[in-house]
Amino acid sequence: MKMSKLYMPTLREVPSEAELPSHKLLLRAGMIRKLVSGVYSYLPLGYRVIKKIENIVREEMDAIDSQEVLMSAIHPAELWQETGRWEDFGPEMFKFNDRHNREFCLGPTHEEIFTDLIRHEVKSYKQLPLSLYQIQTKYRDEKRPRFGLLRSREFIMKDAYTFDIDEEGMRKSYYDMWKAYEKIFERCGLKCKVVEGDSGAMGGSDSHEFTAISEYGESNIVYCDDCDYAATDEKAACLYEIESKNLEELSIEKVHTPNVKTIDDLTEFFSTTSDNFVKTLLYNVKDEVVAVLVPGNKELNEIKLLKIFKVPEHELFMAEESQVKEVTGAEVGFAGPINLKKDVRLLVDSRVTKMKNFIVGANETDYHIKNVNYGRDFTGEVIEDLLLVEEGDKCPKCGSILKMDRGIEVGNIFQLGTKYSEGLNATFLDENGKERKMLMGSYGIGVSRSMASIIEQYHDENGIIWPLSVAPYQVVVTIVNVKNEEQIQLGEELYKELSSLGIEVLLDDRNERAGVKFKDIDLIGIPIRVTVGKKASENIVEFSLRKEGNKQEINVNEVIDRIKEEFKNQGLSV
Amino acid sequence: MKMSKLYMPTLREVPSEAELPSHKLLLRAGMIRKLVSGVYSYLPLGYRVIKKIENIVREEMDAIDSQEVLMSAIHPAELWQETGRWEDFGPEMFKFNDRHNREFCLGPTHEEIFTDLIRHEVKSYKQLPLSLYQIQTKYRDEKRPRFGLLRSREFIMKDAYTFDIDEEGMRKSYYDMWKAYEKIFERCGLKCKVVEGDSGAMGGSDSHEFTAISEYGESNIVYCDDCDYAATDEKAACLYEIESKNLEELSIEKVHTPNVKTIDDLTEFFSTTSDNFVKTLLYNVKDEVVAVLVPGNKELNEIKLLKIFKVPEHELFMAEESQVKEVTGAEVGFAGPINLKKDVRLLVDSRVTKMKNFIVGANETDYHIKNVNYGRDFTGEVIEDLLLVEEGDKCPKCGSILKMDRGIEVGNIFQLGTKYSEGLNATFLDENGKERKMLMGSYGIGVSRSMASIIEQYHDENGIIWPLSVAPYQVVVTIVNVKNEEQIQLGEELYKELSSLGIEVLLDDRNERAGVKFKDIDLIGIPIRVTVGKKASENIVEFSLRKEGNKQEINVNEVIDRIKEEFKNQGLSV
Repeated sequence: MKMSKLYMPTLREVPSEAELPSHKLLLRAGMIRKLVSGVYSYLPLGYRVIKKIENIVREEMDAIDSQEVLMSAIHPAELWQETGRWEDFGPEMFKFNDRHNREFCLGPTHEEIFTDLIRHEVKSYKQLPLSLYQIQTKYRDEKRPRFGLLRSREFIMKDAYTFDIDEEGMRKSYYDMWKAYEKIFERCGLKCKVVEGDSGAMGGSDSHEFTAISEYGESNIVYCDDCDYAATDEKAACLYEIESKNLEELSIEKVHTPNVKTIDDLTEFFSTTSDNFVKTLLYNVKDEVVAVLVPGNKELNEIKLLKIFKVPEHELFMAEESQVKEVTGAEVGFAGPINLKKDVRLLVDSRVTKMKNFIVGANETDYHIKNVNYGRDFTGEVIEDLLLVEEGDKCPKCGSILKMDRGIEVGNIFQLGTKYSEGLNATFLDENGKERKMLMGSYGIGVSRSMASIIEQYHDENGIIWPLSVAPYQVVVTIVNVKNEEQIQLGEELYKELSSLGIEVLLDDRNERAGVKFKDIDLIGIPIRVTVGKKASENIVEFSLRKEGNKQEINVNEVIDRIKEEFKNQGLSV
Repeated sequence: MKMSKLYMPTLREVPSEAELPSHKLLLRAGMIRKLVSGVYSYLPLGYRVIKKIENIVREEMDAIDSQEVLMSAIHPAELWQETGRWEDFGPEMFKFNDRHNREFCLGPTHEEIFTDLIRHEVKSYKQLPLSLYQIQTKYRDEKRPRFGLLRSREFIMKDAYTFDIDEEGMRKSYYDMWKAYEKIFERCGLKCKVVEGDSGAMGGSDSHEFTAISEYGESNIVYCDDCDYAATDEKAACLYEIESKNLEELSIEKVHTPNVKTIDDLTEFFSTTSDNFVKTLLYNVKDEVVAVLVPGNKELNEIKLLKIFKVPEHELFMAEESQVKEVTGAEVGFAGPINLKKDVRLLVDSRVTKMKNFIVGANETDYHIKNVNYGRDFTGEVIEDLLLVEEGDKCPKCGSILKMDRGIEVGNIFQLGTKYSEGLNATFLDENGKERKMLMGSYGIGVSRSMASIIEQYHDENGIIWPLSVAPYQVVVTIVNVKNEEQIQLGEELYKELSSLGIEVLLDDRNERAGVKFKDIDLIGIPIRVTVGKKASENIVEFSLRKEGNKQEINVNEVIDRIKEEFKNQGLSV
């Protein structure tokens, strides 16, 4: 492609709306444009990267005998109602009616649609196992779309679904997909950690997330360097242990604590440390208030709470002020387990039961109670682990200190078991003619999100540094001065020769100052650069790699060998 | 691909919902499945054909320097309101609100979205001309979705948009696209006629439709064998001429015509021919009734009426019974231009003014009036041409008798002029620094509809006969008896050898009776067939083409040459 014809509206200014490197650079490099909040258009260079990623996905899916299909983006409500997810998804689902007033949604995922297809088509164990995938546009009406392609309302996904006759088959399908995902992300150049995931709205038993390490990622991941343990912080088991202290249980005592509400205020007021407090958190779950008790120095993991109540995320939130007053009889900040004014469910993290003489709110404005002890002063439902893993916690598998990192969830794999085949009655006849439910898996890769994640991992202050495998073009030939005949001629010759070898080449033949051209080339991140300048008459050109920057003068005859070398270094062939 | 693993749910029965060959065969061959009315899923074989067509489109678009992008399927209402099309599209648009109650639609076409992109990005004549395209899913909430992929509510389109500085540039872009379309349809094997089109909701000046000839097509096209005139029947000028008769104008006379309403009844009653009548048709246009008069032996062309009233299709319909009674004072069937009870607009096709002593309704139940003459007995707005072209009409260009055919509109190209750049204020600065509106073109190809159209043109009673260029697989190697070791071995060898040459091969290794296999192979329409049967031990196989059927025994060594020969015959290379 000649850049004089390429539609590549680069920007010098950093768009004010963008915070993250990937978002800024995708806009600046003229690869995407915002239509409305969370909805983007892919311009020529950006869409070439998308197609590169899609092709890598296709090749690895085909390699494990998954077959490509394309399903609708508009789904009839009935199927989602059959599994109960029409309500579960809540406001995240775009919903609409057709001209006959039939209800539809824009598909946020496709478990219902694939299961519906298969229940009508597959009747016998002979037709299983089956693995189908699609690369398709998905929709989620995010509360706060942000970070460009990392959290958008319209996005490109690869989603796959497997159907097996038994658990063993399901686990094999899961394993195959896992291995394919590793290859896909490796080929895209993405450095990922595979962590135990939370199944969330998908349901089912086992799940893993492929997380691209990035300081701006929205996922917190926890892993152990001494063993293979790795999980999201939402899922990770917290091995926090309370030393059993052989202390005498003192008498409880009400203390006047005017306007002292937070743990920080309280530690100062009582001149003690936060591990001597127990926090009483009031939540609203399906219009009912529940109280949750955790040690004052630890955080509650809300995802663990969701699992106990078996509700979707949007149905759990902190109790409102009026509810707090009704339940505690006090202002916000003085809740505790003793003398609640209403009978509410009381969930207690198991560590609380091992603490001695701790401090809690008194359910009375400006008062706390000290020397409280579980069992003697109150009881509740004891839950083994409600805590969020934190820096310094120990690995639940080997006891070493866990490490934490941030990352972007670019892929996920779920063992769904029979959740959907039960909900939608997807059965088959086994070898003995007995009707059984299919065992399913579902697997996602965020294609557009992967593009942004690659940029998060590959950029510098001047722009993007694409890995060769996903670069919009592999090589750029820059004619420094387009008024110089020799430069034009040599540039065009190189362009033609490289193109004829199947190399994807940009020819920068724009009538711009050299500085402008080099800035653009840095910004759009083409991996291999050949610059045709003053020494064109001597058949000397400059060769450089975007990732290194140092330029070398070489004879034009060496160009192809040098390109081949870099292809080889990055695991590709010309 | 081994067919034992291929997801290809063929059906023996013809699905009752399907009327057209393409619809029946796509369902029977397991290529598509219906999700809901007008919404389909593409299964593995069907989606391979879609991708083949898409790639042909891509290559030809790239060849004319059109650049691929991908825009959103969800459009904010504001852009459509700016051009006034939010209302124009009426109930054909799927509309919905997001969680913040902002209005959106599912894009039925993308003029607004592309123009919006360009008005923000392109400021100078130096950035023009520009040609962009996308292959994307479109939505129209059709009143009566039917015929499978030919009239669906969700469909795959290639749409392109060009932006030029002047008329000349626009016409060149239009011509380039025209030529690219000819190549695309030719490569897909589609026999098309290019006809003058009606611009409809697109607006603009000039347009053409690419119509795949098919007896089941919904478009009627009119063309001349003696010159290059070709148009849709909606657009075609009707050259119907009334011989001026030097007859005396007789006195009008009211005739009792009890229960005689239709032209057929009337010709019988009056013992005359239909060209002695004038039909008075009552229409409802924006809640107002208008009367339209055409010769009794000709049909009104409603599209020509739409243009006069400048309203979209859904705002013009036949007047309701109550309106007819109100305007004529009579039952339906007795309308006429004389003594209307209400003052309505009266549109008169110019031929009516040349007729003598004709018969019309009397605006009184069971009465007609004869010997009516335009000018003497009534007047109205005379319109040059309101008639639909019919078999036997003459070519408006050369006067020869026109021919008529049916077809499917698979592509269309529009010169939009400044319709959208005015509506959305898309301007650029010309060489003199003067602000000017861009000249636009818009161009569509129905990708999914093309797939169905190819089947309409290529099938027989046993199934589909894919042209090699779009076939899901190019060759099928059938192992007749999968219990025979020699057959398996030879079949697998051939499969591997052909695959290694880059040929797309299916290996029918299914444990089914030979008859079942052959029926399936016929049905799915793979162009080249190699059958490995009893003579495998002698290295003899059967070679046949789906389009011919006659089988030939050849030595296995000849297979590749025979395949190459057929590739060459169909303009492809191995």
